[in-house]
Amino acid sequence: MNKIVSSALLSMALSFVVACGQDAKTAVPSNGSVVDAANLAAHPNLLLAAKDLPTLQAESSRYPLFDRALTAAKNTVDEAMAAPVDVPFPKDPGGGYTHEQHKKNALLMYQAATLSAITGDKAYGDWAITLLKKYAELYPSVPLHPEHKHQAPGKLFWQVLNDAWWLVYVIQAYDALLPQMSQADQTLISQQLLLPHARFLSEGSAETFNKVHNHGTWAAAAVGMTGLVLNEDHLVNIALRGLDGSGASGFLAQLDQLFSPDGYYTEGPYYQRYALLPFVVFARALERNKPELGIFDYRDGIVLKAIYAAIQLSNGGLFFPLNDAIKDKGLDTVEMVFGVDVAYGLTGDKDLLAIAEYQQQVTLNGDGLAVARDLHQLQGAPSFSFGSKLFRDGPAGDQGGVAILRSGAATVVFKAASQGMGHGHFDRLGWIYYDGANEIVSDYGASRYLNVEPKRGGIYLPENDTWAKQTVAHNALVRNEESQFAGDVKAASKNNPQVTRFTQGDGWQLVSALEPNAYPGTEFDRTFVLLDKVGTEAPLVIDLLRVRADEAANFDLPFYYQGQLMFHTGKARLALENLKPLGKSNGYQHLWNKGELVTEKNSVQVSWLQRNRFYTLTQWMPEKSRIALTELGANDPEFNLRREAGLVVRYGKTKQATFVSALESHGEYNGVREYTLAPRGVISDIRYTAVGDYSLVNITLKSGQAYSVAIAHTAQNGEHRVDTADGAITWTGDVAVVQVAGNKNP
Amino acid sequence: MNKIVSSALLSMALSFVVACGQDAKTAVPSNGSVVDAANLAAHPNLLLAAKDLPTLQAESSRYPLFDRALTAAKNTVDEAMAAPVDVPFPKDPGGGYTHEQHKKNALLMYQAATLSAITGDKAYGDWAITLLKKYAELYPSVPLHPEHKHQAPGKLFWQVLNDAWWLVYVIQAYDALLPQMSQADQTLISQQLLLPHARFLSEGSAETFNKVHNHGTWAAAAVGMTGLVLNEDHLVNIALRGLDGSGASGFLAQLDQLFSPDGYYTEGPYYQRYALLPFVVFARALERNKPELGIFDYRDGIVLKAIYAAIQLSNGGLFFPLNDAIKDKGLDTVEMVFGVDVAYGLTGDKDLLAIAEYQQQVTLNGDGLAVARDLHQLQGAPSFSFGSKLFRDGPAGDQGGVAILRSGAATVVFKAASQGMGHGHFDRLGWIYYDGANEIVSDYGASRYLNVEPKRGGIYLPENDTWAKQTVAHNALVRNEESQFAGDVKAASKNNPQVTRFTQGDGWQLVSALEPNAYPGTEFDRTFVLLDKVGTEAPLVIDLLRVRADEAANFDLPFYYQGQLMFHTGKARLALENLKPLGKSNGYQHLWNKGELVTEKNSVQVSWLQRNRFYTLTQWMPEKSRIALTELGANDPEFNLRREAGLVVRYGKTKQATFVSALESHGEYNGVREYTLAPRGVISDIRYTAVGDYSLVNITLKSGQAYSVAIAHTAQNGEHRVDTADGAITWTGDVAVVQVAGNKNP
Repeated sequence: MNKIVSSALLSMALSFVVACGQDAKTAVPSNGSVVDAANLAAHPNLLLAAKDLPTLQAESSRYPLFDRALTAAKNTVDEAMAAPVDVPFPKDPGGGYTHEQHKKNALLMYQAATLSAITGDKAYGDWAITLLKKYAELYPSVPLHPEHKHQAPGKLFWQVLNDAWWLVYVIQAYDALLPQMSQADQTLISQQLLLPHARFLSEGSAETFNKVHNHGTWAAAAVGMTGLVLNEDHLVNIALRGLDGSGASGFLAQLDQLFSPDGYYTEGPYYQRYALLPFVVFARALERNKPELGIFDYRDGIVLKAIYAAIQLSNGGLFFPLNDAIKDKGLDTVEMVFGVDVAYGLTGDKDLLAIAEYQQQVTLNGDGLAVARDLHQLQGAPSFSFGSKLFRDGPAGDQGGVAILRSGAATVVFKAASQGMGHGHFDRLGWIYYDGANEIVSDYGASRYLNVEPKRGGIYLPENDTWAKQTVAHNALVRNEESQFAGDVKAASKNNPQVTRFTQGDGWQLVSALEPNAYPGTEFDRTFVLLDKVGTEAPLVIDLLRVRADEAANFDLPFYYQGQLMFHTGKARLALENLKPLGKSNGYQHLWNKGELVTEKNSVQVSWLQRNRFYTLTQWMPEKSRIALTELGANDPEFNLRREAGLVVRYGKTKQATFVSALESHGEYNGVREYTLAPRGVISDIRYTAVGDYSLVNITLKSGQAYSVAIAHTAQNGEHRVDTADGAITWTGDVAVVQVAGNKNP
Repeated sequence: MNKIVSSALLSMALSFVVACGQDAKTAVPSNGSVVDAANLAAHPNLLLAAKDLPTLQAESSRYPLFDRALTAAKNTVDEAMAAPVDVPFPKDPGGGYTHEQHKKNALLMYQAATLSAITGDKAYGDWAITLLKKYAELYPSVPLHPEHKHQAPGKLFWQVLNDAWWLVYVIQAYDALLPQMSQADQTLISQQLLLPHARFLSEGSAETFNKVHNHGTWAAAAVGMTGLVLNEDHLVNIALRGLDGSGASGFLAQLDQLFSPDGYYTEGPYYQRYALLPFVVFARALERNKPELGIFDYRDGIVLKAIYAAIQLSNGGLFFPLNDAIKDKGLDTVEMVFGVDVAYGLTGDKDLLAIAEYQQQVTLNGDGLAVARDLHQLQGAPSFSFGSKLFRDGPAGDQGGVAILRSGAATVVFKAASQGMGHGHFDRLGWIYYDGANEIVSDYGASRYLNVEPKRGGIYLPENDTWAKQTVAHNALVRNEESQFAGDVKAASKNNPQVTRFTQGDGWQLVSALEPNAYPGTEFDRTFVLLDKVGTEAPLVIDLLRVRADEAANFDLPFYYQGQLMFHTGKARLALENLKPLGKSNGYQHLWNKGELVTEKNSVQVSWLQRNRFYTLTQWMPEKSRIALTELGANDPEFNLRREAGLVVRYGKTKQATFVSALESHGEYNGVREYTLAPRGVISDIRYTAVGDYSLVNITLKSGQAYSVAIAHTAQNGEHRVDTADGAITWTGDVAVVQVAGNKNP
């Protein structure tokens, strides 16, 4: 934990805010939060800044992305302005009419106010003010929402989280409208709507507000930005330091605790995206209004790190679907558009233009204009440097992490992070593999059809618990057909895996992690090596998982692929006419058992076609091991599960088990041009040998070439020697890759 | 049959060719087929024409598509020229080394010769001549191919079909090389390679050459074009009229018999594309060399009609996957690039530029340049008019047909065509439905992984017979779990369905067909009505299938959808823990039986999400009907089948059965922007009533609106009256659509 550093920064930050607040108070007029004429010129000053308005007006149609965003906003608002104003009394739950209308109104006010400021067409602003006044008139009579259930109740919405979201947009609308708003309207709106709502979100919803959790961040951003606009420093202070001012909660505590030092958000990329928006927006507003706070330097630039981390935690525009993730979320979501624009406004990092180009969207402010302009004027195609990275988890970076190994089109994502709270899955030391933008070794993500009413209103489905969170749903180790930590979040949250190595050398990259707690009395470690120079067409993935148990148990290692099986080796015993589930519970009840592969040789190959490329898994098969072929879909009465294929490598009762495999990406299927390249991989066999605490993986190619990959599990920086049938291998460091037979590659 | 007309044209054509040949002979030098200097100026004159060369040279880099095609060809040939020439002795089967090398060499010679002519860089041509001479030296020693199996044997390849394909490209290469070729080389190549190979493909492979079948067309094109280039009119004549000169076979007979008067090729769009290339190429060559033949006017312009038909028989760039079709074939295949360029060269029809834009390719000749130029210079986006069309089948257009109903994004494809020879499927009166580019009610296509060696060398798989061709694999009627015509091609080829109507009126389009032979003693008709004005978001599809049998039987109507089931109504009895096949044979053995839906109400709804849109089938459920839920994949030991979901509407023992359903396309799922629109359709119920030979389909919407769709099955042009509970409906013509309850639509 870097709590000491954080606290020191926090104290500085706090003292500054207090001082700043005191100075500011002299300018606050007596009627509360009405801004006087002298200060009006300083508005807007959140994401949209008064100083940028002349340029925005002059250049708004000059760059396609900005022009398009402005036109889209105009079309939306024009259409709304042609219809009667509709501010209904709140009564419906999520997805219902009043819920959707209040959501829509917040965005409309925000867009109309922005248009008024940028285009100078005050009719937009007047319309937004009319809406704001309707809300101001309604608000005093609105009680707690009648439909609130498990979550903390809101007023306009069933969850207070939605109310905070609403104010984040509405305060920006108000800020942009100030220059054209009468003092009477300012008084009405600030006194009857904004301040009481900010008080409701803070004192009135103390539990949520004080949460170090993304719900708390939305509340902090809403309340804090309201404070900035209305010169209510008390609001800014509690937003930064929590209701009691202690700093144990509030925005700064959230910055300290919710992100790791590498900018990783513990719930995983899907929620990182969601959580990011209030961080980015509030930070940008603080930077403008309290530049002395240096919020973007806070904790070594944690907000920017979090934006960059979210980008790195994606392939082909889509986030790695770790934990409860909807798989179609990615870099083109509104949260990432805000993130990229703000980051670009601050850093001018041209790499970000590649993401903006993918997004094909910008925000309507100076940052968005800069992105649109620079992308338009850029020579050549922009490119973001996706790389191999370890994202440590936990506030101090000592709670495991997510490792990414990238080489060419190959990406290995290794999940050795902590539980990730209630949306976490029980999949320690699980992995995902991508070939370019395509997810090849896949993670199921969440079982949920977001916002789809016929699927139980769009909430997490029962199969999210019975399948998606279970260990067997992942490419992760299962003992005795039970999930890690027996599926108990509390137990799982008490400790975390350890990333023991993240290193690279000539033609190889390696990551190792250790998990000692997921199964009592059982310890397992897993190592991925990505190899560039062993004669395969694409980088080769070596997966090595070692288990040591006090008592003999059954161990399963699932492997989920997408696409169509092309061939397999080994002997198949298939269930051709009768399918039964692979097991009874913990997710096994959802897998149809399609049969088994066994072999008397060293290894078995399974090869499949996904889109236009082939993939071959070569699995080392020691005695008594077998591979179950599975398909998802048993015990699925509501047809909630997708039909996906898998393999489960199974070891019978044993105290010690080692799973070893090599994954090749190869060839091309081209149905249009009628050719097929390399539909089989080049590997013919792999073998595994343990020599003390060294692992030797022998890879034999069909060409006659053979390689030994020697891995030192301990004392990695020392000198190592292993004697093998092919002779001695000596090396220093983590890995040696040695060609042991056949013609040398050129 | 329009044999009379064809024969008359044929006679004219023949007499012309003969005359022409006689004239030409005077110019043929005594050493055989060497072209003298005077005639050299007229070469090349097949697809590439000498008269276009100056323009091609001047403008080749001016238009992106042409420039790109030229650069691609240069890169390919440059790379090949940097390696040693490789003309191996033929020995390997399809996919093997010598097979692939001879394929590659043909295309390389063609490209190099073209480059030489267009760029003036004679090094390309010299290299191609070297290759041609290697072939000329090799050819005399090449026997029949050792690997030939069921197909007629070739010499360079295992199938003579491939040898014909090879010569189609090589004769074009030779033609383009003539201006730079020495007389000695001409003699060598024409006497030792081209003429003997043309003789082998004709006299030497008489059975294939005389086939009225696409194999025969490839042979005719190869032999005929060789005749055109070498002034060997005998070859041109046999190519046009068959070996005996009778016209019972050959190119003209193929034009008469293989296409219907609407340009439909009886094997279906996938093979239409394949068959098209030699027709297009040979016709273009004939047009240039024998303009008096008027080949493009032949049979009312049948070649152009065939090109346009192939385009219309596609959606989203992909061909309708009727019969043995690989589903990723479409408008961007090389055959269609040739077709579109030639058609554009002849007609200048700007609609074709939309297809060329989709193709992003042009051929390297004057036609290709015209396409590239006009597309580049076009103002605005080109657009091809896809419409509702009936493509009659059979040489005289009286053997059923394929009907396409289009409205907005909706496309109904109704297959009431004849068997389509050996690649035909037993799916009379089956259908496919598209929403935009997406296939919603789907056809499996062929069970084959084209060119994928691990899948049995890429040939048709056993499951093509046991599944893909069977009736239950299609959206078509099955009696007693047996395929139509008991799966016998000969029996099925003896007769055909009748398309009884293809009409449209205000807001509706209708097609009906009758099949009296597929099941002895059983007659069934099917009607599709596409309705624009019944309160649904998208055009509504009504499907009405009526069966009359002499003896009671079980009737099944399968329905295959893609995507994820969202909800269903009715009562489900599901097989959650144990799957067994739905039946024993005729394809049923491949379907897992996932359970049944039944209801005591009028209808059952099944709704699913595919990509980002929802679809709801409302199926009328008379007493004793039930819906089986299926998934493909049982009895699939090689994992050849795709996992696809289906429904089978089942009626127990009955002499008379009517299947009625309505299919809605609705709403939107947007995971990125987090909204969902209309995840349920607007229909609440449908009911069916037969009144004499009238059908009444009542559609009730959730809004309270209700519509009656009244269909007259006989005397369609008369006046009709049906008395219903809602009052009398009177109309003239095929269909009346009447709103019978609720507020009128605006």
